[in-house]
Amino acid sequence: MTSPTFTGVIPPVMTPLNTDGSIDFDSLKNLVDHLITGGVDGLFALGSSGEAAFLTRTQRKEALRTIVEHTAGRVPVTAGIIETTTPRVLELVKDAQEVGAQGLVATAPFYTRTHPVEIEEHLRKIHAVAPDLPLYAYNIPVSVHSNLEPEMLLRLAKDGVLAGTKDSSGNDGSIRALIEARDDAGLQDSFKVLTGSETTVDFAYLAGADGVVPGLGNVDPAAYAELARLCLAGQWDEAAVLQKQINHLFHIVFIGDGARMSGSSAGLGGFKAALKHLDVISNSTMAAPHQALDDAEVSRIGEIVDAFLYRPEV
Amino acid sequence: MTSPTFTGVIPPVMTPLNTDGSIDFDSLKNLVDHLITGGVDGLFALGSSGEAAFLTRTQRKEALRTIVEHTAGRVPVTAGIIETTTPRVLELVKDAQEVGAQGLVATAPFYTRTHPVEIEEHLRKIHAVAPDLPLYAYNIPVSVHSNLEPEMLLRLAKDGVLAGTKDSSGNDGSIRALIEARDDAGLQDSFKVLTGSETTVDFAYLAGADGVVPGLGNVDPAAYAELARLCLAGQWDEAAVLQKQINHLFHIVFIGDGARMSGSSAGLGGFKAALKHLDVISNSTMAAPHQALDDAEVSRIGEIVDAFLYRPEV
Amino acid sequence: MTSPTFTGVIPPVMTPLNTDGSIDFDSLKNLVDHLITGGVDGLFALGSSGEAAFLTRTQRKEALRTIVEHTAGRVPVTAGIIETTTPRVLELVKDAQEVGAQGLVATAPFYTRTHPVEIEEHLRKIHAVAPDLPLYAYNIPVSVHSNLEPEMLLRLAKDGVLAGTKDSSGNDGSIRALIEARDDAGLQDSFKVLTGSETTVDFAYLAGADGVVPGLGNVDPAAYAELARLCLAGQWDEAAVLQKQINHLFHIVFIGDGARMSGSSAGLGGFKAALKHLDVISNSTMAAPHQALDDAEVSRIGEIVDAFLYRPEV
Amino acid sequence: MTSPTFTGVIPPVMTPLNTDGSIDFDSLKNLVDHLITGGVDGLFALGSSGEAAFLTRTQRKEALRTIVEHTAGRVPVTAGIIETTTPRVLELVKDAQEVGAQGLVATAPFYTRTHPVEIEEHLRKIHAVAPDLPLYAYNIPVSVHSNLEPEMLLRLAKDGVLAGTKDSSGNDGSIRALIEARDDAGLQDSFKVLTGSETTVDFAYLAGADGVVPGLGNVDPAAYAELARLCLAGQWDEAAVLQKQINHLFHIVFIGDGARMSGSSAGLGGFKAALKHLDVISNSTMAAPHQALDDAEVSRIGEIVDAFLYRPEV
Repeated sequence: MTSPTFTGVIPPVMTPLNTDGSIDFDSLKNLVDHLITGGVDGLFALGSSGEAAFLTRTQRKEALRTIVEHTAGRVPVTAGIIETTTPRVLELVKDAQEVGAQGLVATAPFYTRTHPVEIEEHLRKIHAVAPDLPLYAYNIPVSVHSNLEPEMLLRLAKDGVLAGTKDSSGNDGSIRALIEARDDAGLQDSFKVLTGSETTVDFAYLAGADGVVPGLGNVDPAAYAELARLCLAGQWDEAAVLQKQINHLFHIVFIGDGARMSGSSAGLGGFKAALKHLDVISNSTMAAPHQALDDAEVSRIGEIVDAFLYRPEV
Repeated sequence: MTSPTFTGVIPPVMTPLNTDGSIDFDSLKNLVDHLITGGVDGLFALGSSGEAAFLTRTQRKEALRTIVEHTAGRVPVTAGIIETTTPRVLELVKDAQEVGAQGLVATAPFYTRTHPVEIEEHLRKIHAVAPDLPLYAYNIPVSVHSNLEPEMLLRLAKDGVLAGTKDSSGNDGSIRALIEARDDAGLQDSFKVLTGSETTVDFAYLAGADGVVPGLGNVDPAAYAELARLCLAGQWDEAAVLQKQINHLFHIVFIGDGARMSGSSAGLGGFKAALKHLDVISNSTMAAPHQALDDAEVSRIGEIVDAFLYRPEV
Repeated sequence: MTSPTFTGVIPPVMTPLNTDGSIDFDSLKNLVDHLITGGVDGLFALGSSGEAAFLTRTQRKEALRTIVEHTAGRVPVTAGIIETTTPRVLELVKDAQEVGAQGLVATAPFYTRTHPVEIEEHLRKIHAVAPDLPLYAYNIPVSVHSNLEPEMLLRLAKDGVLAGTKDSSGNDGSIRALIEARDDAGLQDSFKVLTGSETTVDFAYLAGADGVVPGLGNVDPAAYAELARLCLAGQWDEAAVLQKQINHLFHIVFIGDGARMSGSSAGLGGFKAALKHLDVISNSTMAAPHQALDDAEVSRIGEIVDAFLYRPEV
Repeated sequence: MTSPTFTGVIPPVMTPLNTDGSIDFDSLKNLVDHLITGGVDGLFALGSSGEAAFLTRTQRKEALRTIVEHTAGRVPVTAGIIETTTPRVLELVKDAQEVGAQGLVATAPFYTRTHPVEIEEHLRKIHAVAPDLPLYAYNIPVSVHSNLEPEMLLRLAKDGVLAGTKDSSGNDGSIRALIEARDDAGLQDSFKVLTGSETTVDFAYLAGADGVVPGLGNVDPAAYAELARLCLAGQWDEAAVLQKQINHLFHIVFIGDGARMSGSSAGLGGFKAALKHLDVISNSTMAAPHQALDDAEVSRIGEIVDAFLYRPEV
């Protein structure tokens, strides 16, 4: 049995909630179907967009189990194992293994001040307990406040510890530099680079990236599937046009009023409001202390969705 | 029954580990005795210095239970409930209640981007489920990357949500400004301000602070007890002299080589090496991915301890 | 007479120095010829790469005069007016006018803490004294520690204050968002967007940018001219291949040892060493307190230049 | 002739302006008298509070000349030489020498990215051209975005390059650590440490500092003179009481509305409004692009001054 490769469009699956904060499993299953029908290549459960930082360990495991079981092999499923430090991450590895995740995605340690040497050891220890699961390093400085250095990533790639990286640094130049260094080292077959930037997927593909993990892909998976297809076909002008349409849809993350909520509330709230507007999920409840969008904001989000959602021509 | 007040010297109790990463309960009990014998006024379990971010939920609860039970009412014990977001913190509140903690210490949400409105709601929700436990807000920007604003703290104090704050911002001017605003609002009896800065305790007391939560107090509780006594007695020159001696002892946190470890490894590692040197704990194992000090570093730490540990004159 | 438009490849002209720190005017003229011969569309004097922050006001004016006079209208010349605050920038505007610069490039105020309202007033006051010179706002957070917000830029564009922006934020997603907002506002004819990122020029053009201000363009102007040509022709795959070659040349900025010099010394030093290797300038002296590259570093830079400089096929 | 020592209360002299932005020399002379009459120990011209970053080189020199001449030896005068890099700072050194400044105060380079090695060379080059003028290193990370490391400062002290430092880091713990390291190195006679924090002067003195450079000292020099006297006399409780009164006066810097102005506008504007209220200066004009306080804000500042200005009991 060979490990699945996580390339192409791998959306970070959101976690629909009931109004009491419990997981809305029916909506979660609908969302999984929405994504797979939309043409995605894999699913990333328990990422930042999945509100993993807001779910208890039990909730995380149940969400992951539902995603894995309902996906039923249609596409591979990888699991975020986002926790502060090694001992706590290793618990999540065990949970992921028990429910059948086919890959792992780990960040640098956080809350604690950390060091490149420590980050490297952290990733090595994770791989050591789950050598059969492809491990992707998740570069997300905005959340963990440290950066994963290219030299370290490629050393771990060479040693077989990492199968890839998801880069949410927002720095397309850095992603390209990583890809160039990877290619110069001849690691392009064993180390995959996915961008986490929804609005510059064409850039990433033009630079040689292997895929994208778009939060907005929860709302419009078909747009990203088509965008990836255009990029792989070298139809860059068409890709840029579609990317521009997607970027107008992306405005749903800026509707929530920054005077009373964080970018996380506005962004994930925007995604959930759009999914409810599309009848994919039953309600747009956010986990505490996320703040809710108001009616006018939700209405505006619906208008944006109606205007910019990708609709393949028949 | 009245709630305990957490003032004076409240060290953040470290968590001694066995070499396999499990908790060394015997050493933990010795440490509790060392602290209480040293004259501290209370204990803060599961703080940053307690490696809370490196302990599983089960380990946290067992460490807290041991501290509470072994303390046996000699001093009050408050518990850190350090987690990313509200649903996860509320689980820890339940754990703390079950093992008998007499207070709670909560940070702002982390990993997620957060907003002052969300931080305030977060703290209100915690208090709502544990109204009988005094809740202290833990201001630690270096770990959570947001700051607790004085206006919010005092509003929550006025509403009875907060009983105090532990400020580890490292900004003594801000702590003083908070104290002045508190006093101007007439909240000095109900809202206590503790500094987390080991090296400026005299400053904090001079400004009207109510106590200190010194990581270094694990090593030298008697020094901090005496320092607090001198401050309360208005013997500021003597206090400054003792503070200076303590600050030389504090150099143990700078011995670990920054080229191969974080400030957390060097700092907490320095404390653990000192505690082992003093025979308080059995070994100085750190949780992964913390890096270990080498023999020369440990030896240097022992020398510093021998030179600067407070020894009351008889 | 109409104002020139600064689009296409506009390198920030370096300032060659004699070993005593005075300007090497002969080398400067050679550099101007090297750039124009290489096919650039305009010149940006007194930018960050021109070591403007290291030149006295007299030196700045003389360097600018030499560039303008030696260019002699072959391409338009725009001038950086980089100073802390409005009164000091206005002095530089006068100098630029006196020596015949055809455009101005201004940053946000720095050293002082500033505010968006103040940045906007700053730019308006500059335009008011030089209404005939196209004014570009220079977004360079790494130097001035504030960001120019798209809303402000487009408001100033609409009011005729700004003719464009040079964006050195390093954030290609932000540049694209600015371009999209500009196009949505119908300002594409009057407000030009130039990227300052040497390694992602194809990205910028794909998103609709109007040009690039590449420091590395001092060394290899022909490569950037060809890259821009490929982008404008929609030959994106060929563009990406050339961009990749350029990015390998860009490694000259990383050769200087970070243990003994800043990124500015390594980067600008790398450019100067390459220009000397190519016999464009006489020596690679840097202004104090910039640190010099050592012989091995200079030699390595020469090798990189030999390997990756663009050589048009005949 | 021996060099003056800059210790005690050394306010950073503000620069009063006429409404056209020119220097109001009469008000400047009144301010100098106000400060000396208030009991200060020296004057620091052309600092951040002197709006040095907003003055042209000519204005700086004229302001400095006026301060030196009008002071006429009553107290020593030191001059800020705040510029981006070495060649530009050296011009200011010459200006300062020409008008008779008795000391120099230099920051790390700014705008450019810099490196500790470069900062050290920068300071050494300054001292080399003005060996007879005591040179103080000005640590102001909020403006220059780098920190002056204690090891470097003490190395430069030992080599006779630096005579002291003004620390505006806002970190009292760091200032204390510097003082302790200085004392351990036996450099307390040759290297003086001044704090730039208006609200924690008692802390600094308790830790062994030699003085303070208080922007608020422009408004209330007598308060700081008395505060320093109490500290030197070991009357710490009385000092803390006076410091608390001063800190209430300091609220004038928070009155300006942060929605329409920077902290610099609000802070320096607050000082100028207070000085006008006290009839020390003729008007409160700020240099562009500083924003003006409105009437209600100015009125509120007057009330605060009336309530909290120090009035020695007779």
